[in-house]
Amino acid sequence: MPDKVRIALDAMGGDEGASVAVPGADLSLQRHPDIEFLLFGDEAKIAPLLTGPLKAVSRLVHTDVAVQMDEKPSQALRHGRWKSSMWLAIDAVKRGDADVAVSAGNTGALMAMAKFSRPAIAALWPTLRGESIILDVGASIGADAEHLVDLAVMGSAMARVLFNVDRPKVGLLNIGVEEVKGLEPVREAGRILREAKLPGLDYIGFIEGTSIGEGVADVVVSEGFAGNIAIKAAEGTARQFASYLRDAMRLTLRARLGYVLARAAFAMLREKMDPRKANGGVFLGLNGIVIKSHGGTDAEGFAAAVDVGYDMVRHSLLGKIKQTLDHYVRNEPQIPAVGEVAT
Amino acid sequence: MPDKVRIALDAMGGDEGASVAVPGADLSLQRHPDIEFLLFGDEAKIAPLLTGPLKAVSRLVHTDVAVQMDEKPSQALRHGRWKSSMWLAIDAVKRGDADVAVSAGNTGALMAMAKFSRPAIAALWPTLRGESIILDVGASIGADAEHLVDLAVMGSAMARVLFNVDRPKVGLLNIGVEEVKGLEPVREAGRILREAKLPGLDYIGFIEGTSIGEGVADVVVSEGFAGNIAIKAAEGTARQFASYLRDAMRLTLRARLGYVLARAAFAMLREKMDPRKANGGVFLGLNGIVIKSHGGTDAEGFAAAVDVGYDMVRHSLLGKIKQTLDHYVRNEPQIPAVGEVAT
Repeated sequence: MPDKVRIALDAMGGDEGASVAVPGADLSLQRHPDIEFLLFGDEAKIAPLLTGPLKAVSRLVHTDVAVQMDEKPSQALRHGRWKSSMWLAIDAVKRGDADVAVSAGNTGALMAMAKFSRPAIAALWPTLRGESIILDVGASIGADAEHLVDLAVMGSAMARVLFNVDRPKVGLLNIGVEEVKGLEPVREAGRILREAKLPGLDYIGFIEGTSIGEGVADVVVSEGFAGNIAIKAAEGTARQFASYLRDAMRLTLRARLGYVLARAAFAMLREKMDPRKANGGVFLGLNGIVIKSHGGTDAEGFAAAVDVGYDMVRHSLLGKIKQTLDHYVRNEPQIPAVGEVAT
Repeated sequence: MPDKVRIALDAMGGDEGASVAVPGADLSLQRHPDIEFLLFGDEAKIAPLLTGPLKAVSRLVHTDVAVQMDEKPSQALRHGRWKSSMWLAIDAVKRGDADVAVSAGNTGALMAMAKFSRPAIAALWPTLRGESIILDVGASIGADAEHLVDLAVMGSAMARVLFNVDRPKVGLLNIGVEEVKGLEPVREAGRILREAKLPGLDYIGFIEGTSIGEGVADVVVSEGFAGNIAIKAAEGTARQFASYLRDAMRLTLRARLGYVLARAAFAMLREKMDPRKANGGVFLGLNGIVIKSHGGTDAEGFAAAVDVGYDMVRHSLLGKIKQTLDHYVRNEPQIPAVGEVAT
């Protein structure tokens, strides 16, 4: 295990930039004194905020190029490649100078810059039992069976780290009607997962969209198009419900009085559906991890993203993924080799 | 316009069978005296319920075979083909003896039996502005560009009937990240819809999962896999939110008191998220329509499904779809013919 966890920060990302990222890093350092930070961004804005213990464990690399929140990925690549704080933070991970990168920057630009092998974006989905991991929510489209199995392995390694379970339950997202042919790669991936009996994950079969929120699986595996649409449809529905609730409560004096009395309960409800928690995600690949914090987050939200990155490094997430994939490829001669499956 | 609207009923479908279907038909007849019913099912159960004006406009065809709610589609086909009340009701539409069929039966079996050409299942999605139509939510998987354009035409014809708008806004469900290649058929369908400028629909471009609930489009078009996952993820989230709300309200005495005071508001909220409204759907094809009522519905819910079927016939839904598709194929020589697009 490495002595220190080396975290690269895109200190200019997000709506607030350095004024959220630097205090966020400070909060996380108080919880994890064994972090070293590598900060990329505008020295004039960052240096004044870097004080005390944080300054002692940080190295600041100046760049005056920052990806804007409203830039299209193509624009961001054009003017931010090689030199923006986002690019440099990701590149530090690829070069091995950092173990993980954290950014609150523009998602599309991050996706374009973090070109990992076998990429996936994993997100946390709040459920009735706690949280589940869903992946891929948009890094790639139209996965074959091999990629779906990789996603199952990556997601369950992540679940072991985040949820502290030995064999996370893994479900493949599918539609529930027998006669309609489910997507062929999903069925093929189901067959492989059932037969391969991989260590470190418990394959529970297909699950439908309605079951995600029930928390029946710790890890929900989908190709990126359907996964993205699932999580965004759920997000939109949660917002819609909150809006109905607000309207309903404003309707009559009695309802308003009721709302005042039940205010603590409503506050708890808002907390449960907090987009700061759900929004964001983990950009995962076999050669790197970037934690995406929500663009509109505050220092506490950014610190939570740094904490997730820290946990993943401390628990050797990438090492575990590679180990399981090696096991799957080498030790199960009775199933087709990975390459043959992907037809 | 036909004198009468001829509606075939699977009188044995649903959890309650004839005891819901027959009173439901009666309710709808009171609103639409120009309906004629063709009922299929167990005469011993149906005949005693058929009284008064309903009896005068109904023809009852006896069969003692009924598809069970828990049967798999393959089982249902095996023992219900040619003779079950569900099969006979659908077949009456195909033979031209009825204009539309209504069933509260098992969805998978309906899908297997209603083998229309270019099939789609359309559902109503409650939004902040009212309701939108989403299709396809599971009749087919992996639509090509041609099928997506057909879905846009079918959905907008349905929106004209149900929402009484001249040019419904139509959006294609897609993921919002520019750099990732969206699904090729979705982009191709977008190009066709933009250039074809079809009468009777207003193409507004791609929409993301989060926007469905905002009601930005009257019609949301998707291939069946992602569409099914979207609507089920939203349904699950609505249930989850309702469950959080119940728990939060039970938490303290103050919250409970608040809940009592705001009860009318909560009742309204439940009404908005009523699964009787959202669950169910329209099985649409170029050669027939079947209205699927929720299996657990009551007579009022079943009557609402009959009303939808009535409206579609009275407004010549299928005729309008065929007309628009003809227009699209014949009058727009500057765009590729339908057959060439589907590559």
